[in-house]
Amino acid sequence: MTLEEARKQLMDLQAKLSAYHHATGALHYDGVTTAPRGTAANRAHSMTILTGELYKLNTAKETRALLEYLDGHKEELPLEERRMVYLLLKGQRKTEKIPMDFYLAHRKMIIEASDAWRRAKETGDFATFEPYLQRVFDDCVKLAEICEPGTDPFDYWLNDSEEGLNAKKCDAFFEAVKKTVVPLAKAISEKPQVDDSIVNGYFPEYKQREVSSYIMDVMGLDKSRCGIATTEHPFTTSLGSQHDVRITTHYYENNFAPAMYSVMHEGGHGLYFMYPAEKFAYTVLDGGASMSLHESQSRFYENYVGRSRGFIHYIFPRLAQIFPENFKGKTPEDLYRAVNKVEPGLIRIRADEVTYTLHILVRYEIERKMLAGEVKIHDVPAVWNAMYKDYLGVTVPNDTLGCLQDSHWGSGQVGYFPTYSLGTAYGAQFLQKMKETVDVDRCLAEGDLAPISAWNREHVWQYGLLYEPEELLEKVFEGPFDPSVFTRYLEEKYKDIYNL
Amino acid sequence: MTLEEARKQLMDLQAKLSAYHHATGALHYDGVTTAPRGTAANRAHSMTILTGELYKLNTAKETRALLEYLDGHKEELPLEERRMVYLLLKGQRKTEKIPMDFYLAHRKMIIEASDAWRRAKETGDFATFEPYLQRVFDDCVKLAEICEPGTDPFDYWLNDSEEGLNAKKCDAFFEAVKKTVVPLAKAISEKPQVDDSIVNGYFPEYKQREVSSYIMDVMGLDKSRCGIATTEHPFTTSLGSQHDVRITTHYYENNFAPAMYSVMHEGGHGLYFMYPAEKFAYTVLDGGASMSLHESQSRFYENYVGRSRGFIHYIFPRLAQIFPENFKGKTPEDLYRAVNKVEPGLIRIRADEVTYTLHILVRYEIERKMLAGEVKIHDVPAVWNAMYKDYLGVTVPNDTLGCLQDSHWGSGQVGYFPTYSLGTAYGAQFLQKMKETVDVDRCLAEGDLAPISAWNREHVWQYGLLYEPEELLEKVFEGPFDPSVFTRYLEEKYKDIYNL
Repeated sequence: MTLEEARKQLMDLQAKLSAYHHATGALHYDGVTTAPRGTAANRAHSMTILTGELYKLNTAKETRALLEYLDGHKEELPLEERRMVYLLLKGQRKTEKIPMDFYLAHRKMIIEASDAWRRAKETGDFATFEPYLQRVFDDCVKLAEICEPGTDPFDYWLNDSEEGLNAKKCDAFFEAVKKTVVPLAKAISEKPQVDDSIVNGYFPEYKQREVSSYIMDVMGLDKSRCGIATTEHPFTTSLGSQHDVRITTHYYENNFAPAMYSVMHEGGHGLYFMYPAEKFAYTVLDGGASMSLHESQSRFYENYVGRSRGFIHYIFPRLAQIFPENFKGKTPEDLYRAVNKVEPGLIRIRADEVTYTLHILVRYEIERKMLAGEVKIHDVPAVWNAMYKDYLGVTVPNDTLGCLQDSHWGSGQVGYFPTYSLGTAYGAQFLQKMKETVDVDRCLAEGDLAPISAWNREHVWQYGLLYEPEELLEKVFEGPFDPSVFTRYLEEKYKDIYNL
Repeated sequence: MTLEEARKQLMDLQAKLSAYHHATGALHYDGVTTAPRGTAANRAHSMTILTGELYKLNTAKETRALLEYLDGHKEELPLEERRMVYLLLKGQRKTEKIPMDFYLAHRKMIIEASDAWRRAKETGDFATFEPYLQRVFDDCVKLAEICEPGTDPFDYWLNDSEEGLNAKKCDAFFEAVKKTVVPLAKAISEKPQVDDSIVNGYFPEYKQREVSSYIMDVMGLDKSRCGIATTEHPFTTSLGSQHDVRITTHYYENNFAPAMYSVMHEGGHGLYFMYPAEKFAYTVLDGGASMSLHESQSRFYENYVGRSRGFIHYIFPRLAQIFPENFKGKTPEDLYRAVNKVEPGLIRIRADEVTYTLHILVRYEIERKMLAGEVKIHDVPAVWNAMYKDYLGVTVPNDTLGCLQDSHWGSGQVGYFPTYSLGTAYGAQFLQKMKETVDVDRCLAEGDLAPISAWNREHVWQYGLLYEPEELLEKVFEGPFDPSVFTRYLEEKYKDIYNL
């Protein structure tokens, strides 16, 4: 095998991997958006077989020989290909440690758990989901033990979401944020509350769909390769490559804000999915640098764009056109204050920017204890409810609005939640950096998001998975990560809104 | 290898094949229902790779050895497994003849052609579709030559749609039907015409969706494993197995009948997809015996159920509830006559039962000439329009309503159209046979389709691909196929409606 042949085979291997991921991704996407309700087992049947093929391809002798050959010649490879080989070898070495039978049983179980979660959420019946949740956490402990014996399972899964992350780093980060957020929330609670009647009322789904379409346009989401669908719990995925991206939302007819902010959040993910360098399509570099980096973009568009005064003033007339009755006699400033109302609530994805971190903290802490066996799966609802009382001061009326609200655990996503908060804080520091060269306030006020997205594309999106997350962050920040940028942002914004 | 091991491997092989078909099927379904418009090339990229894997699996030495071993022991196998081995070997021997590069290029081209057709139909621009259509027919001629050298390509493709079918049989069939249909259509045209104002007007899509849902319920389509979506040209598919079936429709807001009859037509396919014996799931027997047999079921529910007097009287009150304005002052008999109005028109899938055959004849004859090179691809619109003038007396105003109306050619489906007419005639003979033991008129009048579907399930659906189509037909008919059952049905029905 010559180096040239091997390099060609490297691209062929990745194209094949992306085709299998396209297949399983399309089955998953179909399953949570349009598939009939009783078809999960049928999908699990096919996905298990396809995942088995993927496992075999990943761990094949030929694949290993190819990657090791290229690794031996890495000095002769361009940066991108060196990174591809590194990521593929890392994946392979990890996959090889997991016995195929266990791996496939786990993947199959996840599909079933995901379906069980959806049904349990609909009925608020935690008991039907409990055995699946038990298996998810049992498997997560086992997988951590198999892949990195001796490592704390929680650290293992945090690192799985973001290379280099661990509980110690998270603890320090949350400690820093809590110092601002807890007194800030308290100070706000003592002030006259914001009137958010403008977002409450009756907003028929078909009109909200118009809002989604409008927001996608303003965000510059190219509809010829970014689709939108509805689902129980909004998410974003790419199918096959950056050339086909799907965002999702969920409509509530009594309040249009949740669906609109899901579109902005998922739209941020969508942009990141769509704009790695085009040459990365059908390779392992075609994606985001880490989950936190991904959330930095979703939270950026959701909050720093979507909940900014300038942007709200910009979109107000169009929304007033779509909902003339509801907006009658209201001002852009009413809407700005309504979508920034700080109120400890039950639902994470509907939380304001101040209390959001507290929702994450509940998940962060309970997950750690679940993995350590300190919270039994059976006791999750009770512990969850007690923590919500303690951290947010709210009483959870049922598990649909409590521990069943998020899809993550049912999908086997453990160690993921901190990335939302980290990403939010990264985003604040991106915003600060961006303002050095972009007139962000003008862009927001004029709904001209192109310069904002051009900056994100230049500094973040185009690199895909080319750099380690920490390396990329340092390049963008031109210095270390500083959570105080985020907490200062919160203080300034909410002092203004609540006259603190 | 012991026989038991080989039998186990036979099932594993088929499960793997069904998983790949699930994957490519899901990508196709997504592509024509919900995918963003600019994503066809991305899907083609993945589908070509997955199809290549399927090709390799089908033609692998191990697969061949397994099938030949089992074929050598066929006397020891149960009927089902003998048939599986036969069908798999037949498929393998055919696939092996086609060079992999040609096969993959062909599959990829079909995905692109399918997308080009959709765009061309939207704009009525045949010229943009012409090069794709050329390639489809060029490939079809080549594939026939590769797979069965010396066979007429038209016969090859007719036989591909239904084992045992050829142009000679089709000619005889069409000759027999024309003898009734042409004079019948003429006699009707000389009578006072039916008032079909009840189906014309404004019928908002969201209300038509209610009709679809209602019709699915009346048809007994279990929504937990049969979904419905919208598409440019309605079709039905199963994904992975009988456990997940998808029908599609297309709404026109100026007339509710086309969407409703698409649901009944595709619902007939859907039932056939859903009810092969459950043990056939994930095997090659899980499907319909042939395309004509499949169309016999779709056309059965569309016409013999959906356009029957009893059924129309049964559904009338519910439709009147959904469309109170449009149905004001109308009677069930008005609706019955409207949905059975005989009128030579432009669109096959909106044609009445009498002129339907003429639409098929146009396609049958032009396709034959296209394959033989007697009609150049470039001249298809002109020839099509001339034939519509000649056979149906109508002037085709544009290619969207002309030769671009059907999705088949763009999907590489050549030799398919006659199966609609054959299936329709099979269905008439099923109906006659069914009436020997089922009180069909009572069932229709009471909307109690269970006994009708039970009969179809017992005599047709449960067998899947277990028998050759001719063998199955003989079992059901207990005698030969007799097209005069269909023509007599037409004569009786329309004599009544038009007082002939």
